[in-house]
Amino acid sequence: MRRRDEAHVDRRLASTLTGPGECSALICYAVFEMALTSGMASQAAFLFDLDGTLVDSVYQHVLAWHEALESEGISLSIWRVHRRIGMSGGLLINMLLRETGMALDPARIERISARHAEAYMRNARDISPLPGARELLRALTEAKTPWAVATSARMETARPTLDLLGLSPERDPIVTRDDVRHAKPDPDLFLAAADRVGIDIEHSTVVGDSVWDMLAAKRARALGIGLLSGGYGAEELERAGAYRVFADPAAMLHHLDELGVRS
Amino acid sequence: MRRRDEAHVDRRLASTLTGPGECSALICYAVFEMALTSGMASQAAFLFDLDGTLVDSVYQHVLAWHEALESEGISLSIWRVHRRIGMSGGLLINMLLRETGMALDPARIERISARHAEAYMRNARDISPLPGARELLRALTEAKTPWAVATSARMETARPTLDLLGLSPERDPIVTRDDVRHAKPDPDLFLAAADRVGIDIEHSTVVGDSVWDMLAAKRARALGIGLLSGGYGAEELERAGAYRVFADPAAMLHHLDELGVRS
Repeated sequence: MRRRDEAHVDRRLASTLTGPGECSALICYAVFEMALTSGMASQAAFLFDLDGTLVDSVYQHVLAWHEALESEGISLSIWRVHRRIGMSGGLLINMLLRETGMALDPARIERISARHAEAYMRNARDISPLPGARELLRALTEAKTPWAVATSARMETARPTLDLLGLSPERDPIVTRDDVRHAKPDPDLFLAAADRVGIDIEHSTVVGDSVWDMLAAKRARALGIGLLSGGYGAEELERAGAYRVFADPAAMLHHLDELGVRS
Repeated sequence: MRRRDEAHVDRRLASTLTGPGECSALICYAVFEMALTSGMASQAAFLFDLDGTLVDSVYQHVLAWHEALESEGISLSIWRVHRRIGMSGGLLINMLLRETGMALDPARIERISARHAEAYMRNARDISPLPGARELLRALTEAKTPWAVATSARMETARPTLDLLGLSPERDPIVTRDDVRHAKPDPDLFLAAADRVGIDIEHSTVVGDSVWDMLAAKRARALGIGLLSGGYGAEELERAGAYRVFADPAAMLHHLDELGVRS
């Protein structure tokens, strides 16, 4: 049985194809049928966050940010840093400085950011892909379902983890902090990622481990799927807008047919 | 205005003082009044977990367990380790080995446990007390409200963090894994802690950051207060039985009068 929201997407596709106001009941139905039989209905894209979603790197990022903040005399409990992981690094520092009442000095922000990158890279050798991450991307490719990666990290810190997944910025659709004006929770990264694979953002699903991914998905008008692999609770992700929550990429792969992907 | 549940506790105290069946309405009222005026109504104890509740050490424990498991060829996502922190170390290893289908070989469990202790102690110098932890214990002491610490850790790993808090096992009421047969989520640690301060466990409140604290509190028939400082979400703690959730010890201190503590 086809799900109602998919039929809705098909109808929207049909209306896009014929243009607004030109869709008589007969033409509409014909185009709708055409979309179904040509497989256009499955042209939904999956836009993946990277850290905590495809690679098991959140806890290393948390401790690297904590070390970088401490080096500037900013004492903050580690769980508070954890709850900010996934948003833009600049925004994270701004928020934390504001909370601690310290001045937003650009030189200090630059030093904290550089120290984070250095501390993170020092521990990057211990990082592994999350279970099922490579298999999930491979299954989507085989099902001809477009996917992209959209990360708040700069290419410099993202590259070692992309290597772990066998991904290459030269070959695969990857959008980083360097490509957009504002990182998450602004929608720019996911908008750019949908654009990169040529799929309307409203036909896309964002897959992420943090509330910042889910908030950016909402602002971009995409759907959101949450993964527990970054250490957030299921309820936190659902409250931020996730319509489904899975443990990790392996669990999502196991339920791929429920998400409209047909192999 | 006095809260109903406190009045209930007073009445129970009164009935304990006079013994069952001996409490006529008049005697009952007299003893109830005496309990109120003598301050006995405030004889509720707070039983604190240590890691993630009083000291900011959860993330270091998580990465130490992860390293120890990896050293035995056990690959497990870090968030899954995080969700087991706070329970007995032996139980944690048992659960993880069972999930990965590996044999529960006592020598292997001993090796993992020793490697965790070694990795944790290596990073213990970066650990700080959580905001408000020392002040909260001091405020309870000044309000003559009994408190104790009950941790699933062995004294060997707990000692450096107790030092940070200015606590001494020789002077202060501290119960560790070494003192009981079963650690959390079994109720033994909190039962022993209540016993140590001479307060009925049913008049005690467990304060902890993990669902294992809340489950152990329920099994012991104590109340549970959750703190977010270990990295769990508020909803997870509430679902496990927390009747209140605060960010950290500083936030709990700020609301102490709402918890029946009178200075």
